[in-house]
Amino acid sequence: MITSFQNSMTRILKQNLGDNMNTAVFYITDNGKKTALKISEKIECDVFDKESLKNIKFYFDNYDSLIFIMATGIVVRKIAEFLKSKKTDPAVIVCDDKGKFAISLLSGHIGGANEIAIKIAEILGGTPVITTSTDVNEKIAFDVFAKKNNLYIKNIENIKYVSGDIVNGKNVGLFSDVDIKGNIPKYIIENKKCESNVFITALKKDIDKRDVCLVPKKYILGIGCKKNTPFCNINNAVYDFLKNIDVKSIKAVTSIDLKKNEKGIIDFCNNENIDFITFTSKELEKVEGEFSKSDFVLKTTGVSNVCERSIKCFDENAVIIKNKTIYKGITLALGEIDFVCRF
Amino acid sequence: MITSFQNSMTRILKQNLGDNMNTAVFYITDNGKKTALKISEKIECDVFDKESLKNIKFYFDNYDSLIFIMATGIVVRKIAEFLKSKKTDPAVIVCDDKGKFAISLLSGHIGGANEIAIKIAEILGGTPVITTSTDVNEKIAFDVFAKKNNLYIKNIENIKYVSGDIVNGKNVGLFSDVDIKGNIPKYIIENKKCESNVFITALKKDIDKRDVCLVPKKYILGIGCKKNTPFCNINNAVYDFLKNIDVKSIKAVTSIDLKKNEKGIIDFCNNENIDFITFTSKELEKVEGEFSKSDFVLKTTGVSNVCERSIKCFDENAVIIKNKTIYKGITLALGEIDFVCRF
Repeated sequence: MITSFQNSMTRILKQNLGDNMNTAVFYITDNGKKTALKISEKIECDVFDKESLKNIKFYFDNYDSLIFIMATGIVVRKIAEFLKSKKTDPAVIVCDDKGKFAISLLSGHIGGANEIAIKIAEILGGTPVITTSTDVNEKIAFDVFAKKNNLYIKNIENIKYVSGDIVNGKNVGLFSDVDIKGNIPKYIIENKKCESNVFITALKKDIDKRDVCLVPKKYILGIGCKKNTPFCNINNAVYDFLKNIDVKSIKAVTSIDLKKNEKGIIDFCNNENIDFITFTSKELEKVEGEFSKSDFVLKTTGVSNVCERSIKCFDENAVIIKNKTIYKGITLALGEIDFVCRF
Repeated sequence: MITSFQNSMTRILKQNLGDNMNTAVFYITDNGKKTALKISEKIECDVFDKESLKNIKFYFDNYDSLIFIMATGIVVRKIAEFLKSKKTDPAVIVCDDKGKFAISLLSGHIGGANEIAIKIAEILGGTPVITTSTDVNEKIAFDVFAKKNNLYIKNIENIKYVSGDIVNGKNVGLFSDVDIKGNIPKYIIENKKCESNVFITALKKDIDKRDVCLVPKKYILGIGCKKNTPFCNINNAVYDFLKNIDVKSIKAVTSIDLKKNEKGIIDFCNNENIDFITFTSKELEKVEGEFSKSDFVLKTTGVSNVCERSIKCFDENAVIIKNKTIYKGITLALGEIDFVCRF
């Protein structure tokens, strides 16, 4: 969310860098300005002059990608104190002011800096400078794989072991609950334990200290509840309901639009970083299929079932794998959607 | 000073990177190791594996240049908390593990990272990636000029104005007390005030807020003193003696070897970051020329004059521009050596 703009900003709307990424471009010199404007002709971005460098924290917190047209040393010093983790930090790209190089400096994989550096170098006619070892060695990076396939990385601190083994020419084990398509590289061995391994599963799983667990976001959680149901009741109910299923496998929580401001549900979704999507009673009613019915729910909402129907509203191909289950003032249902991982 | 070594270190003595620079090379992957060893075949450096990355502070504090064979993101996160200033931080260079790129990441100018990146790229057959705008635009950088010409940069925070004006195509004024040789670029205007200016002078000077003062290290301070003369007496005497001359223009303090452990002198030299060089009474006696004499000094040291003679011992071509001056228990003399700045 961007809450304010500096005077020095020029907003130019163009093609987005992807995934609704918002992008800030900073320049210092006159050549840098030309380079920044060349970028802004091709991609949607906000362009800032050197005055904005005084308040980098704001841009670091509010933009998905930061492109600096200046010396790497300036950039490293400017961003140093705001670094948190490669899971959350924005992509940082540095170009010299003539656009000869576009360096992927920070968050090359999950943040997408490598891809952006390639795109920027293309725009400027320069060279993308990418140093992540999986890319340099043209090997698969499971953090990139996870991002592309909508998998939650549960043990991001272990990605380095898997990547390290791969670039060092070792095999890595792969165990998956979901369908895998595409060409699996020959150093990825399915269903055989190696020194480091990748598990793709929606189930809660204890793993060894060099392994990574990737959780496919393949479930939709339908929910109904009484007004003002507290967060902790909802949280406890969901965890009990899911049992051995990892909560990170929930792609979305669905309900009726009457609940769109229901604080307990919103807090739960924010806490777990899950989208919350609601539908009108008319939309819910239109869904075809057999659903359990409640006269009380019908009387208060105008539709006889919220939790199951809202799942089908989200995706008509979703399969209800757990029917309506009643907790104190809460109803829950779980739907599974098609999920395929592609190499 | 390096006080301890990790087990993972391999010491290989080769040609030095220059100015007695000590260099640490870090790798993570197997390819990275090959790349590190290729570097170590050509330059004197210590090679460390990934275990050493756990204690980067030690290497940051004790090496002049750090070469990391790994992704830029790892390096930026590892060094972020130890950054101090571009005046003191080591040169940081990042190479991908195949050696395709050698990026000058930090301390490109004063730290020498740009030059090292060029050398490393040459060794690895890769591309040096340099982003400092003066280099990108093939313009002069006065911080590099100062380093090459043994000039102390008094207002390093203003270098950015001078460099900015130069890369933006503006003229910069130059005022120098010392001889200048070589080709002065056409955008450097001698003896004409511009929006930003460079002063090369050994005199104390008030400058405007976009100007830079570079102090030539062209003086040798000869000193003699009674045993256990306190630091503050020496400090006060020197500042009084120098008057309008900037203390940063002193290249070396010289004396007799009897004084080599004299705490007050040593503290003064450490405080001002000046070399302290002593000579034996035999060496002092051999110097030709007319010097003021002291029977007391002759009796205690075996030579009739320390402060003036030690200057001539340091450089026989030095001209004594201030003869022996006596402060309480201290004698001082000032010598000037040949000093030329070259573009």
